[in-house]
Amino acid sequence: MKILFNQVGLIGVGLIGGSLGLAIRRKKLACRVIGFGRNKHNLVWAIQNGLIDDKACSLHKMAGECDLLVLSTPVQTIQNFLPLLARWAKPGTIIMDVGSTKEQIVKTADRLIKKPLFFIGAHPMAGKEMGGAKEAQDNLFEGTTCILTPSSNNAAGPLGRIKELWQRVGCNVVIEDPHKHDRFVAAVSHLPQMSSYALMTAVSRLVPRQKIPIIAGSGFRDTTRLAGSPADMWVDICETNHFFLSRALKNYQKELTFLENAIRKKKRGELKKYFKRARKKKLLAGK
Amino acid sequence: MKILFNQVGLIGVGLIGGSLGLAIRRKKLACRVIGFGRNKHNLVWAIQNGLIDDKACSLHKMAGECDLLVLSTPVQTIQNFLPLLARWAKPGTIIMDVGSTKEQIVKTADRLIKKPLFFIGAHPMAGKEMGGAKEAQDNLFEGTTCILTPSSNNAAGPLGRIKELWQRVGCNVVIEDPHKHDRFVAAVSHLPQMSSYALMTAVSRLVPRQKIPIIAGSGFRDTTRLAGSPADMWVDICETNHFFLSRALKNYQKELTFLENAIRKKKRGELKKYFKRARKKKLLAGK
Repeated sequence: MKILFNQVGLIGVGLIGGSLGLAIRRKKLACRVIGFGRNKHNLVWAIQNGLIDDKACSLHKMAGECDLLVLSTPVQTIQNFLPLLARWAKPGTIIMDVGSTKEQIVKTADRLIKKPLFFIGAHPMAGKEMGGAKEAQDNLFEGTTCILTPSSNNAAGPLGRIKELWQRVGCNVVIEDPHKHDRFVAAVSHLPQMSSYALMTAVSRLVPRQKIPIIAGSGFRDTTRLAGSPADMWVDICETNHFFLSRALKNYQKELTFLENAIRKKKRGELKKYFKRARKKKLLAGK
Repeated sequence: MKILFNQVGLIGVGLIGGSLGLAIRRKKLACRVIGFGRNKHNLVWAIQNGLIDDKACSLHKMAGECDLLVLSTPVQTIQNFLPLLARWAKPGTIIMDVGSTKEQIVKTADRLIKKPLFFIGAHPMAGKEMGGAKEAQDNLFEGTTCILTPSSNNAAGPLGRIKELWQRVGCNVVIEDPHKHDRFVAAVSHLPQMSSYALMTAVSRLVPRQKIPIIAGSGFRDTTRLAGSPADMWVDICETNHFFLSRALKNYQKELTFLENAIRKKKRGELKKYFKRARKKKLLAGK
């Protein structure tokens, strides 16, 4: 199998960045993977555990040396890094982000990153509630979908290489418009996250703390799993996707209001119809 | 290990009844397990697959022959069976239900089931979203909690035997007042179920059907898992626990309203605090 990149630079070596580094190295998709991040201890750990080959001396130097730069930090930080990379990257470099919202990032990138540089937005639909490099896995992406969001500055060559990169780490790659991406993930990914945070909070208001571990079963465990996610990342996602997420939350609340009303008034027929329909939708979703 | 019962009669051989039958037989906790239910094919399948030894000729005969009768049907049906068992069970028999709400059932049982019969309410916090005997597993209860709800007609002997039964199929047994049981499970079990039904419905209104399987990741899968649950069982639970569940739903909606508002107004600080607190609660819950 051919090597896709000479040197990959990861800006942010957490769960996603670290897993990508690990997968790239194990599958020999690049000659070298280097990492940049705030936390030196984390980078040393990442070297020792094979997530990256080395750490970058500086972002400036790294940007000028790599043919693929991967932004895998919270979304707002990605936006802050883009002007620096636009200035420092060498001609031909592909800059890719792996943030969970795409419209704002692609807009910023469109403005800043011009040929002979290339920008491609990516959103691998993979993750675990626990973030951090220590949770990285080389098979994190296997069997998942990676959404690529084209920007106006997209050449077929770079897009093809990025597509192949994600496919070779195990993803099913789909191309989506950044605006539609944000609208859909608001519902499919960000709304479940909010439902989980709110559920965990509501339950802990309703039940004495020491009772929860005793009574809770697998339903509680799974519906609140995402509440274990790191806060910073989600604050950024909420901010950049506030329009669609707020709309999705309002829709969700409408459904809950319907259920609450039907339960209070003991409308068995309506509840049964609702549950059956939801069940059918879940089975159709196949996930 | 000693045999706990001579003959166990299961009224309803679905996921819970069937799994209990399987576990009792595998662990030799009773000499014989017989089953009663509406669907003959299901009972034949249950015999062929070792869930029960035989099917009962009639409820009347079964009630008079067993020293443990287990009601494992939807909650309303449990209520309908209690007067019949009160009339037909032989002296010394323990009648136990495994329904998900307890206050109404225990009240009915208190009224109907008198010495020399015994009644004990049980709620094993185990299950899978897919119901039915075909999903039965002999290890379904292992590592889970079973809540026993005492009624006024509780002797130490029968309670001890029931406690041992659940412990020997792998449960951690706790005793709880039926009223408190319903209040707590409304939050920890029934609210997550409603959140899942509503989430599945909202998402399928917001995203084209064919996009969901492509975009959805493990967060969506887990938060909507419960939406695959059978409707009938949940209609009964909603009806019998309407007071506490409606209250829990209102609490949940308050949390969502807070989040929607903070997201719309981009209150980063408030969101961060909220997410951090929820995360801490999730980690403390240990589940």
